[in-house]
Amino acid sequence: MPLITLLTDFGLKDGNVAAMKGVILNIAPGTHLIDISHNISPQNIPEAALILARTAPFFPSGTIHTVVVDPGVGTGRRPIGASLGDQFFIGPDNGVISMLLKKIEELEQNIAFVHLNKPEFWLPQVSNVFHGRDIFAPCAAHLARGAGLEQLGETITDIIRFALPEPELTNYGYQGEIIHLDHFGNISSNIRIEHLQGKKVSKVRICGKEINGMVRTFGERNQGELVALCGSTGNLIVSVVNGSAARKLNAVVGDNVEVFINKD
Amino acid sequence: MPLITLLTDFGLKDGNVAAMKGVILNIAPGTHLIDISHNISPQNIPEAALILARTAPFFPSGTIHTVVVDPGVGTGRRPIGASLGDQFFIGPDNGVISMLLKKIEELEQNIAFVHLNKPEFWLPQVSNVFHGRDIFAPCAAHLARGAGLEQLGETITDIIRFALPEPELTNYGYQGEIIHLDHFGNISSNIRIEHLQGKKVSKVRICGKEINGMVRTFGERNQGELVALCGSTGNLIVSVVNGSAARKLNAVVGDNVEVFINKD
Amino acid sequence: MPLITLLTDFGLKDGNVAAMKGVILNIAPGTHLIDISHNISPQNIPEAALILARTAPFFPSGTIHTVVVDPGVGTGRRPIGASLGDQFFIGPDNGVISMLLKKIEELEQNIAFVHLNKPEFWLPQVSNVFHGRDIFAPCAAHLARGAGLEQLGETITDIIRFALPEPELTNYGYQGEIIHLDHFGNISSNIRIEHLQGKKVSKVRICGKEINGMVRTFGERNQGELVALCGSTGNLIVSVVNGSAARKLNAVVGDNVEVFINKD
Repeated sequence: MPLITLLTDFGLKDGNVAAMKGVILNIAPGTHLIDISHNISPQNIPEAALILARTAPFFPSGTIHTVVVDPGVGTGRRPIGASLGDQFFIGPDNGVISMLLKKIEELEQNIAFVHLNKPEFWLPQVSNVFHGRDIFAPCAAHLARGAGLEQLGETITDIIRFALPEPELTNYGYQGEIIHLDHFGNISSNIRIEHLQGKKVSKVRICGKEINGMVRTFGERNQGELVALCGSTGNLIVSVVNGSAARKLNAVVGDNVEVFINKD
Repeated sequence: MPLITLLTDFGLKDGNVAAMKGVILNIAPGTHLIDISHNISPQNIPEAALILARTAPFFPSGTIHTVVVDPGVGTGRRPIGASLGDQFFIGPDNGVISMLLKKIEELEQNIAFVHLNKPEFWLPQVSNVFHGRDIFAPCAAHLARGAGLEQLGETITDIIRFALPEPELTNYGYQGEIIHLDHFGNISSNIRIEHLQGKKVSKVRICGKEINGMVRTFGERNQGELVALCGSTGNLIVSVVNGSAARKLNAVVGDNVEVFINKD
Repeated sequence: MPLITLLTDFGLKDGNVAAMKGVILNIAPGTHLIDISHNISPQNIPEAALILARTAPFFPSGTIHTVVVDPGVGTGRRPIGASLGDQFFIGPDNGVISMLLKKIEELEQNIAFVHLNKPEFWLPQVSNVFHGRDIFAPCAAHLARGAGLEQLGETITDIIRFALPEPELTNYGYQGEIIHLDHFGNISSNIRIEHLQGKKVSKVRICGKEINGMVRTFGERNQGELVALCGSTGNLIVSVVNGSAARKLNAVVGDNVEVFINKD
């Protein structure tokens, strides 16, 4: 049974996600549909890129990830398809694939792109404001049904990418930044466990607060305490035990995170 | 594999949608379940009617739409089933089917109704406050499993309907009203593209603001600008590019929308 | 087709639920996945226990309920699996199973527990903060794929349980408390219909208000009125017709609910 995931900023109220699912099941009955998230902040491409990169690796070979965070819908921005290792991507050419693409490149897996420019794989009528339903859903469904990616459009190579800012090596350790605030208020930074391997973190500075050292997990400190630890995606995170660090620190994506390494 | 959709005002916190799904899968294992929305405003029948009419046409033949926005649960209001063209509806007789029904009538497809009055197709115990779980879910599941609609209850014809207010033709163009505010803050009016075909819109007046002409899509104007355009369901919509028109205009469902047609 | 449900406090924004689903579908392709709720208040084990007990009984034999409300993740708290009658539970040993367990015991069905301590059924890399993805999802998937519960870990019997406070019999009737506030603002108490069978309720006192008698369903009173009735799970609930009793009464879980029984 083919597997299609959906990742959008549509919210869950208006039925737009359901319209996409109806279109897919019309073309490819029996397709297994999994929601990654529909609560991406409106038009927030970097946020969608992060969530996609964090979840896609856990899905089976052959999964088709359909991403519709698409402020450029109906303009010249291209609808694209990609094969990324053993999975597929369908969505707008606006950089939303950037972070997943970087991971696939690091794994040296095969990558190919097409411009989804074959209207025979779209709905007969295409609205200027909802390509998720009219172009992306049908293209994903045709892939699920067995069409080859190269049938859906012309091969291209010049897709749009953006780079996540990398943390800077400083004389005291690393300066990075906040890249995500999650549902619990955990703060995720772009400083990764790879940066810290074999080193001893003496303190973490964030939003005017200092945290001494790192813990292994939340339960090592008391309720309400601020802690720094390694998150489930390998990033250094800052949390409040059974509370919201984002709220406590008034944190905002882009704020500085400084890690001090013990030099001894 | 039969396909059942669910559209409710239950929200996603309390597990009530899950209870319905459990009931369905008990009776009709393997049924494909798709959520249309569970975030309809509490008891808002017209909102549910709109979302149903906008999404149902994208689903495959045979789909069973189960709608539970049901302020009259446990009173004399009837539970009904309907065949609407090649799809089915299960839900309360409170008008929530009105807009979809109108579309099916315009397409001159077959329509039939039954009063779901055969307790052998319900759960053995029926609560007075949750017919979604105890009557609608099991009836939908029995349909999915192969029961004919006419087995589920007696044929009826006098179901409850309401009419969506139609825009008025005026000396300057059309006067309509706001019928929906979506997740992005796009404002949907009841003035449809059919009203405007072949005409030139000179301006749109809404909530004390005037918008000159219409655009094809959001990206034709700058971030933050107010635009009027044709939405993905063929309605005239008013949006703010990468922003919320509903918030900017303090718009409320029912507010006037006036379209001025160029007479030249 | 095996059926796995998911009940968490992860919210629907960050893709964590999707990561769990990807893990499951990798191990047990074709598994039917049903969300019970992902909007449990953060770390609220009693709330999750209640929602689980209210929904699980409606699911088919063989269903595997995966619950991840897990403030103790990464500490000494054990990951456990259980067979509860003809269904299964996978989750942390923190009491979240208590209320469902009590129901199963009342039905005198078979019960068995294991400590999920066999890493060969986990993901190869286990994070200290996301056992939902790294331990619970893979264990649930292996169960779905046909592993026996006893293969997943050593049999145990000393699991953690908490008791829901029982209402007290008083000289005027019953004193109970609020155990849940739902999406509509309905207030659920721990006084159950079994307590009231064959008795006549003269009034209900809650949050400083008194309600005369009980109604069968919402529609028996006018919009905005406060009513007491039997909810869909057999608990005495307090509602506002087409409104929110929780908001009207400023109700909080744990507040007193007093039921006065007519002695005549």
